[in-house]
Amino acid sequence: MITVIEKVRFYETDMMGIVHHSNQIRWFEVARCEYLRQAGIDLFALMDGGITFPIKHVSCEYISPINYGDTIEITTYLHKLSRAQMVFAYRISNQEDGTVMATGMTQNVFTHKKDGTVARLDTEAYAKLKKCYEEDLKNPQTGGMSIG
Amino acid sequence: MITVIEKVRFYETDMMGIVHHSNQIRWFEVARCEYLRQAGIDLFALMDGGITFPIKHVSCEYISPINYGDTIEITTYLHKLSRAQMVFAYRISNQEDGTVMATGMTQNVFTHKKDGTVARLDTEAYAKLKKCYEEDLKNPQTGGMSIG
Amino acid sequence: MITVIEKVRFYETDMMGIVHHSNQIRWFEVARCEYLRQAGIDLFALMDGGITFPIKHVSCEYISPINYGDTIEITTYLHKLSRAQMVFAYRISNQEDGTVMATGMTQNVFTHKKDGTVARLDTEAYAKLKKCYEEDLKNPQTGGMSIG
Amino acid sequence: MITVIEKVRFYETDMMGIVHHSNQIRWFEVARCEYLRQAGIDLFALMDGGITFPIKHVSCEYISPINYGDTIEITTYLHKLSRAQMVFAYRISNQEDGTVMATGMTQNVFTHKKDGTVARLDTEAYAKLKKCYEEDLKNPQTGGMSIG
Repeated sequence: MITVIEKVRFYETDMMGIVHHSNQIRWFEVARCEYLRQAGIDLFALMDGGITFPIKHVSCEYISPINYGDTIEITTYLHKLSRAQMVFAYRISNQEDGTVMATGMTQNVFTHKKDGTVARLDTEAYAKLKKCYEEDLKNPQTGGMSIG
Repeated sequence: MITVIEKVRFYETDMMGIVHHSNQIRWFEVARCEYLRQAGIDLFALMDGGITFPIKHVSCEYISPINYGDTIEITTYLHKLSRAQMVFAYRISNQEDGTVMATGMTQNVFTHKKDGTVARLDTEAYAKLKKCYEEDLKNPQTGGMSIG
Repeated sequence: MITVIEKVRFYETDMMGIVHHSNQIRWFEVARCEYLRQAGIDLFALMDGGITFPIKHVSCEYISPINYGDTIEITTYLHKLSRAQMVFAYRISNQEDGTVMATGMTQNVFTHKKDGTVARLDTEAYAKLKKCYEEDLKNPQTGGMSIG
Repeated sequence: MITVIEKVRFYETDMMGIVHHSNQIRWFEVARCEYLRQAGIDLFALMDGGITFPIKHVSCEYISPINYGDTIEITTYLHKLSRAQMVFAYRISNQEDGTVMATGMTQNVFTHKKDGTVARLDTEAYAKLKKCYEEDLKNPQTGGMSIG
């Protein structure tokens, strides 16, 4: 489980005066990329090896509106893992008072760039992720996370 | 049921070489706004009356990668309607060959701008939407749409 | 000189209630890409050949605010051309009444992807662009365009 | 003069493999908003008082490509100030080695939201900004900044 902190930008708002709902999806990505970085996965090396990791499914439950200037925490953990896919769960909270503002999940599938067929993650990268996944399984904080 | 056509822009891609997955969520909005416009709902008038319509839930199933330069059709219909909420379903297809590239759904909840409490759509606007919803219910093309 | 038409999207607005000013820069790109397409330049083929075309300079003069739902025309022409660079000029107008809403310019430099050094466009692609550039030079409509 | 730090996000890249050039314009905004916040200017209060501050001019010189994962510093200072407008200058550098990656400038004009006419900043807010502007004038680090 990792947490990243973001400060909401003016350009992330829309004319309703709150954050546009596509940004929660982008913040999930920020947290997921940081999780992978901390796990030791190099996305450039994956892509140089011809592997991409497109999103196959996203869902997000928007619980409270997020405003310009809010400081938010995006927490993520691995909910499912195989050599062909990763499912991450997310929670976005207001740093000031802990209010949960959104929850969600994403599924990435490893894919051969050249023809779009499903790829299997190499043994070394998979071992790194599996270690993190097992730590997440043991973590009581992730057990109770809703996955929107 | 309405369909809008978009030509995929360069800035909508990411370094994996395909469309970034937040754009499908944005295209759903383009289609939803056009549906509301054709239904006779004026979003400026709603907002001037103190009503906003934030998204409460989004989901998207990404079936095929979308590329720069693709011409896509985004089809949407009202899947559920009450005076407090609208649920839309979506399908994104490649215009050239009809391949389905994504499906999804969104839930909007009518909300009082001043305090964030749930609002009820006024009778006139609701009647306009209800008429469209009933046409969608009778449309055999929307019945079979997966809602990702 | 070519013109593309866009309908302003809800997600392109910000909490000031108007289009966020980064979108004019993105619309310039939409027009530039369409210009290149009509000129017979294939951006995928360029990139497959190891050539990228990053932006080196952008400027934009914002003359009138652009609103959600506006239909806009983005007109562009080649202002300068060499085998190493392209300078495009732009004008964004309101389709309804012709009001000029923004003007601007961009400079792209052809670059070798592998090391970032300046590249020279191949003879065939350059000839295609030169033909368009010469037509733009003769066009009285582009002569008077401000380049913001 | 203030500096904000950003870590480049995956979604900020495009299919050329580098940051899309509209993001530098957005990062200028992040720095400008932080400058205003540190100066004691409350953008919500301004807007509640019927004043908006749309961008009238932007320019950016792109010196080096910015990549996913880079940590960048965005430095900004007030280059010109009156009660009707603010001109900010910017420099984006790579935190690791100090390489300058972009420079730029923006002009905001204070505007009455209701009719789009030019507004004049209230005395209290103007005094706060003027104090910062005078500090910037005295700062030898801002004197030498190119304003792209």
